[in-house]
Amino acid sequence: MPDAKLQVIPLGGLGEFGMNSMALRYGDDIIVIDAGMMFPEEELLGVDIVTPDFTYLEQNRQHLRALILTHGHEDHIGAVPFLLSEINVPVYGTAFTLALVERRLEEHEMLADTKRHVVEPGEKIEIGPFKIEFIHVTHSIVSAVALAITTPLGVVIHMGDFKVDPTPTDNLLFDLHTLAKYGKGGVLLLLSDSTNVDVPGYTGSERAIRPRFDEIFNRAEKRLIVSCFSSSVHRLQQILDMADEYGRKVALLGRSVNTVTEIASDLGLLNIPDGILLRPQDIMSLPPEEVAVIVSGTQGEPMSALSRVSVDNHKHLSIKPGDTVVLSSRIIPGNEKAIYRMINHMSRRGAEVIYGSMNPPVHVSGHGSAEELKLVLNLVRPRYFMPIHGEYRQLSRHAALAAHLRHVGLEDTFILDSGDTLEIDSQGARKGASVPVGRVCIDSGTLDEVVEDMVIRDRRHMSEDGFVIPIIAIDKHTGHIEGMPEIVSRGFVAEDSAAFLAEARQVVMRTFEISTTEERADWGMMKEKIRVDLKRYITKETSRRPLIIPVILEL
Amino acid sequence: MPDAKLQVIPLGGLGEFGMNSMALRYGDDIIVIDAGMMFPEEELLGVDIVTPDFTYLEQNRQHLRALILTHGHEDHIGAVPFLLSEINVPVYGTAFTLALVERRLEEHEMLADTKRHVVEPGEKIEIGPFKIEFIHVTHSIVSAVALAITTPLGVVIHMGDFKVDPTPTDNLLFDLHTLAKYGKGGVLLLLSDSTNVDVPGYTGSERAIRPRFDEIFNRAEKRLIVSCFSSSVHRLQQILDMADEYGRKVALLGRSVNTVTEIASDLGLLNIPDGILLRPQDIMSLPPEEVAVIVSGTQGEPMSALSRVSVDNHKHLSIKPGDTVVLSSRIIPGNEKAIYRMINHMSRRGAEVIYGSMNPPVHVSGHGSAEELKLVLNLVRPRYFMPIHGEYRQLSRHAALAAHLRHVGLEDTFILDSGDTLEIDSQGARKGASVPVGRVCIDSGTLDEVVEDMVIRDRRHMSEDGFVIPIIAIDKHTGHIEGMPEIVSRGFVAEDSAAFLAEARQVVMRTFEISTTEERADWGMMKEKIRVDLKRYITKETSRRPLIIPVILEL
Repeated sequence: MPDAKLQVIPLGGLGEFGMNSMALRYGDDIIVIDAGMMFPEEELLGVDIVTPDFTYLEQNRQHLRALILTHGHEDHIGAVPFLLSEINVPVYGTAFTLALVERRLEEHEMLADTKRHVVEPGEKIEIGPFKIEFIHVTHSIVSAVALAITTPLGVVIHMGDFKVDPTPTDNLLFDLHTLAKYGKGGVLLLLSDSTNVDVPGYTGSERAIRPRFDEIFNRAEKRLIVSCFSSSVHRLQQILDMADEYGRKVALLGRSVNTVTEIASDLGLLNIPDGILLRPQDIMSLPPEEVAVIVSGTQGEPMSALSRVSVDNHKHLSIKPGDTVVLSSRIIPGNEKAIYRMINHMSRRGAEVIYGSMNPPVHVSGHGSAEELKLVLNLVRPRYFMPIHGEYRQLSRHAALAAHLRHVGLEDTFILDSGDTLEIDSQGARKGASVPVGRVCIDSGTLDEVVEDMVIRDRRHMSEDGFVIPIIAIDKHTGHIEGMPEIVSRGFVAEDSAAFLAEARQVVMRTFEISTTEERADWGMMKEKIRVDLKRYITKETSRRPLIIPVILEL
Repeated sequence: MPDAKLQVIPLGGLGEFGMNSMALRYGDDIIVIDAGMMFPEEELLGVDIVTPDFTYLEQNRQHLRALILTHGHEDHIGAVPFLLSEINVPVYGTAFTLALVERRLEEHEMLADTKRHVVEPGEKIEIGPFKIEFIHVTHSIVSAVALAITTPLGVVIHMGDFKVDPTPTDNLLFDLHTLAKYGKGGVLLLLSDSTNVDVPGYTGSERAIRPRFDEIFNRAEKRLIVSCFSSSVHRLQQILDMADEYGRKVALLGRSVNTVTEIASDLGLLNIPDGILLRPQDIMSLPPEEVAVIVSGTQGEPMSALSRVSVDNHKHLSIKPGDTVVLSSRIIPGNEKAIYRMINHMSRRGAEVIYGSMNPPVHVSGHGSAEELKLVLNLVRPRYFMPIHGEYRQLSRHAALAAHLRHVGLEDTFILDSGDTLEIDSQGARKGASVPVGRVCIDSGTLDEVVEDMVIRDRRHMSEDGFVIPIIAIDKHTGHIEGMPEIVSRGFVAEDSAAFLAEARQVVMRTFEISTTEERADWGMMKEKIRVDLKRYITKETSRRPLIIPVILEL
């Protein structure tokens, strides 16, 4: 079919932040690149995660040949179980990426039924009309790749997520040579990450955090507690190495940091110095100056390990005066208040909390800044360019960065939203017909809960189960609940609704009563605790899963 | 009463962000420094503004001698009408600060009944046992002062808000000499602003924005739209001057920017070049390259002028492709999503939007960074230090900055929360008994609404009026409302409640129907519009003011 057209179909991540997913179709063959999730905005409180609407793929399921993963971040792999539960398509990715996916599939009891193929950077595979080469890139997660996809109409380069780190901690350099080779040979279309397009200059190397951490390790007199994104294997390696040098044992708190450490270590991507690991239950019994703790929860997520530590509600770690806490991460927009609340709690307990944009930094981004994006544009010199991964403000700025390529062969740049499509044939490229896209809200159930259906439950299902709004009035002076919580519900009927509501109010009261004073003052955390406890009660009593939206009033 | 004690009583702004207010008491005499407001957090949706609880002052009303204002920002003067409506105490401040206060008092019809005294920087006044010198400081607002308050026990320095700008645009230098004089003479207690304590180095001069704006004025081919904090007279002056140089007329959009411009110009603090002003209704009729617009609403406040411009719902300004928009302001934590939504809207309309931390900058802070805070600490060399204006994380870091002064006479540093007190007598300083503090939530009424009582309505009153929760379900594909809005209410009874609720649902429907597609996609804005329209309807129909908390569900 040499005269077929190539369609580029963003299913998520364009004109929005997160849940990246992109289909490529040539004739009757479709491959999809990444299947990510996003964390729900506050407006969607009551929802655990959000995935793209894969209706387009479901409608074309007989044509879908493969799911190709660029790297293991949640906004690129988080929706894989939900996609595979609908269409059991073979999955390709690097060993580390697939290992992270496999953990998720195990949780959903889908591991045995799915087909997964490990690909090495530098390897080429052929799927229908697509020849795909995996190109090693540097990023905050290990084993990240860009894709060079040769189609009958030309080469499409999908950059995944990347920075151009000149001195990566694992000494595996960004494979600029392969990118240059394709650029020299002629590239039809470049799809490139826009996340940091509004940051001028170059992103610092991952090694740039070392000087500041050296100073911190030198200076810390008591326990040293570091929080970073759990998937940052480079960061974990540097912290483990420094702990080893400075004579501290390391405890790992939080499920995700334990999972990643185990996987990366098994694959030989993380070198854990002998005898350095400390069991969490031993943190408080060792002399404080001999202990470092790596803990997940940099974003102030209400139920994360660090959040619980900050309000002194973690069974293994209690912050004491003189402890040092480092937030080695960025603040994701929208999370500032939760993060600052957590920092305030820890400061009040006497910890020195190090965060933010000090120089030298305690965090560097994994995404390339404007100059790195230009470097990739100039290496690839595509005929068409389509910025991906970002809100409109970022995509349009990235498009503007490519303007100078008009003089060296760039014919057109396309700013698309998820659901728009780009069509390319022998005549050239243009916007095509739209496809259905959207956000699917998923109530995944918590892990300590027995849930029968761990698979897709979208908001439409949930709205069929109605909603429940617990309303709690708190006296601002005493911090106590005034009267009993109100519970408002609609479209939701329990068998004995008076008894059910009375008990539901008791559930909310109990959640409040067993919370510490600091937790009670932290409304974000209280709302989340109320939601989780009420959900567990309602699911148990009624097998229904209404949307639960706690409202806290201050009197 | 030479053996009386001095009490320092923070009523707001310590351990929290905003609503700064601080009482000083010596024996039976009290003065209060600043009476600010804060904007409500999202948890308090349904409330217009938040002020400190002035119960302590009301309980001691016979002792209150004066309200002293350091400068005219809302977080320092926003609660003045509410305090004066309870206790009609004389107010002291610079001409510009008092002029801003007077506008507010006029709105509340309180102007004739209050006593206001203009003080010049450098002037000294005596109030009971307090001798107060007003010291000129540089800040993002003009006519800002620090206070040197001589008490029988020694001198208290209250820094207000400041930066140490070496090259202020009005050439009025920070009065370091007076500060040094007091430092040399011996200062009992320093109270100093902690807002930017976690920013290393020095804050850039207000003049630092000039190079980048020069480039923008040079490059802009169509309309140039600049948004900045309305009270930033220095910024307004620079923009007006550049518009004059580059041959653009200037229109002012938004009530606050018009008010400030008028006041500052009347007082000779703002020089408006002859013939430069353009009426808003003429913006679209002049050639675009001859127009600049200064518009309020940098924080994405749902009903602000810039927010309305961004969704093409402003009667005088419509963004066209090629226009340039500059957000010459910082992003206040918590507002990121609203601001980015606004930027996306404007980018989609074809504007180039310039914001964020480019270098050279389009915004510089008005608050001193760590090195400036150290400079003030070293000039004043107090016996006691108490950081003010900030959350605990900032106060504790500021306290740590002063540690080196232990070698030059600093005896102790106190980190207090609002409601804690510091007591000083001839024996020294210590924490004293607590006083009642808290947040008072105010439903001020919008200005186009006839409201009988514009004065204090706190949350307790509002909760006596019950609450109303309109719940709107929106179809994610079509953007339309599914079914009729639900309205849940408690503790709130209308005379004919069925008819009332039916009409209230219609009000919500109508708000939706008359909104543009872009507004509908902007939930923050829709919630605010629904709240305002429903409030107006309910107040008219029932004379009650329940708390209104819109909930939007996406189906």
